[in-house]
Amino acid sequence: MLGPFLIVLLCGQTYAQPDPLPSWNDGSAKTAIVEFVKTTTEKNSPKFVPAEARIAVFDQDGTLWVEHPMYSQVVYCLDRVPAVVKAKPDLAKIEPFKTVLSGNREAMARFTMPQLEMILAATLTGMTVDEFTAEAKKWLESAKDPRWKRPYTELTYLPMQELLKYFRANGYKTYIVTGGGQDFVRMYSGQVYGIPPEQVVGTAGGTSYRYDKSGKPFLLKEPKLLLNDDQAGKPQAIHLMIGRRPYAAFGNSIGDKQMLEYTQAGDGVRLMMLVHHDDDKREYAYGPKSKVGTFTDALMGEAKKKNWTVISMKDDWKQIFAFDK
Amino acid sequence: MLGPFLIVLLCGQTYAQPDPLPSWNDGSAKTAIVEFVKTTTEKNSPKFVPAEARIAVFDQDGTLWVEHPMYSQVVYCLDRVPAVVKAKPDLAKIEPFKTVLSGNREAMARFTMPQLEMILAATLTGMTVDEFTAEAKKWLESAKDPRWKRPYTELTYLPMQELLKYFRANGYKTYIVTGGGQDFVRMYSGQVYGIPPEQVVGTAGGTSYRYDKSGKPFLLKEPKLLLNDDQAGKPQAIHLMIGRRPYAAFGNSIGDKQMLEYTQAGDGVRLMMLVHHDDDKREYAYGPKSKVGTFTDALMGEAKKKNWTVISMKDDWKQIFAFDK
Repeated sequence: MLGPFLIVLLCGQTYAQPDPLPSWNDGSAKTAIVEFVKTTTEKNSPKFVPAEARIAVFDQDGTLWVEHPMYSQVVYCLDRVPAVVKAKPDLAKIEPFKTVLSGNREAMARFTMPQLEMILAATLTGMTVDEFTAEAKKWLESAKDPRWKRPYTELTYLPMQELLKYFRANGYKTYIVTGGGQDFVRMYSGQVYGIPPEQVVGTAGGTSYRYDKSGKPFLLKEPKLLLNDDQAGKPQAIHLMIGRRPYAAFGNSIGDKQMLEYTQAGDGVRLMMLVHHDDDKREYAYGPKSKVGTFTDALMGEAKKKNWTVISMKDDWKQIFAFDK
Repeated sequence: MLGPFLIVLLCGQTYAQPDPLPSWNDGSAKTAIVEFVKTTTEKNSPKFVPAEARIAVFDQDGTLWVEHPMYSQVVYCLDRVPAVVKAKPDLAKIEPFKTVLSGNREAMARFTMPQLEMILAATLTGMTVDEFTAEAKKWLESAKDPRWKRPYTELTYLPMQELLKYFRANGYKTYIVTGGGQDFVRMYSGQVYGIPPEQVVGTAGGTSYRYDKSGKPFLLKEPKLLLNDDQAGKPQAIHLMIGRRPYAAFGNSIGDKQMLEYTQAGDGVRLMMLVHHDDDKREYAYGPKSKVGTFTDALMGEAKKKNWTVISMKDDWKQIFAFDK
């Protein structure tokens, strides 16, 4: 009777793999991920995808890290306003800069889109690429989220970090496809997500090529929108920047709908998933009326109709942040 | 006396590497390349560059393959005109389409830039991305260069193919940065150069996101220029698409000047090289007056002033094409 015992034991040892997604509870979401990865990467699978075609795209705000109550890049822009006003004192007298200087966050929450765009243009353009990078880096190292009192870069979701690693371990090239500023996200994507700058696709402005007095060239960030990487802009940007259709796409809001549709329209097996913020204790629960990451009823309808898998933060995630006990 | 002999023999065996650039003659160009790669990749080098920062960019037309007497993509567009006119017969009566249909290549060579743009817009836009890819693929498989009677994709320079492989073997990520159409070059870059589509940066038009009658989404190529990847547009596109400054840049014309300047403006060691078409027997010799790949006197002056290395096709390349005997 020792023989079969040994075989069972050895087989057990051979096949037992450590769980690549330990922060995920068992359930339909985790199953969908593991099944997809196996189906597309196991050599004898009829749905095998060659390594070079394995592209997975991830929205950032609300999908990989916290976006509530305000995108961290918007916080960055608001924090930059005093320095901008110092350089151009006339701005202090006009809106929306006047309100930003007053510190009244409730009034700021009521800014219209054109007002927000004025702030973005004033704080993200008109400097060289190198100057922008230096400023933003300084901010990221010092600024803290008011609820968790931690740097924004620590507010990434542990289950999604595991997912990124799991995909990469299986030959997938992971991309961030974000409505956030491309230059901003690229600055920390390597350190925070293990994603190099060239695999970050974001909203991007134009630059102009100039020379300083010594004849040395530099790129100046211009207030000219090149890519608006949201909604239909996401598949357009994926085509422009990657040139291949993804096999897997992760989002959390109505702005990700087209990216998921575009992914699904490819042949073979594709994976479309949406993170649903339904955990008001450990993170946030916000619905159609939120200003950020709108998970509308229409989006939930689309998900059901098109068989997209909804990830419940509350039920599917055992742990949310790496710093959670 | 056997001992030292053996040591010499063993050392010889240990250190003898096959020449990674066998189609290059010994000379300043080959030396500059090998020195650069060693300096930036050998672990104890004071100018060591970490693997993730190793970016090398290559212009395509005239740098990686033949561009004379006409860019192959322009030939493609001209070849597509009859099909376009068949779909829109009114075009047959107006210029520049009338001249294209006449087959008079000399008259075509005199097209103005706005006329060429009309042809590009008519032949490269107004169809879905998938339709474009299918058409262009068909053409690439059948069209032949009139001088060598071979598919255009065989007219790549063997020494540059060796260079691409040599860089990649040393951890460099190789990118094409071309004035040519991004969608066009991406179609064959993998097969022809071993460069995946996402590492092709080119002139790119916008797309619109649409749905067919069954509700399936697709991208339509629009006649709207997003990136003009030439001259100052090259460093701008590199910033947009890669987000890092290259360590090495290869070009062959005045349109590559800014890309080389931008590369050189980085810290540490950088490599800037220009292919000079001075071989009228084995390929072409063309100078400032050529319509393509203009290597102006001013560019040669820049190269001298800025210590860019000029590659002489005649002197530095032992063999030009893989099919050469």
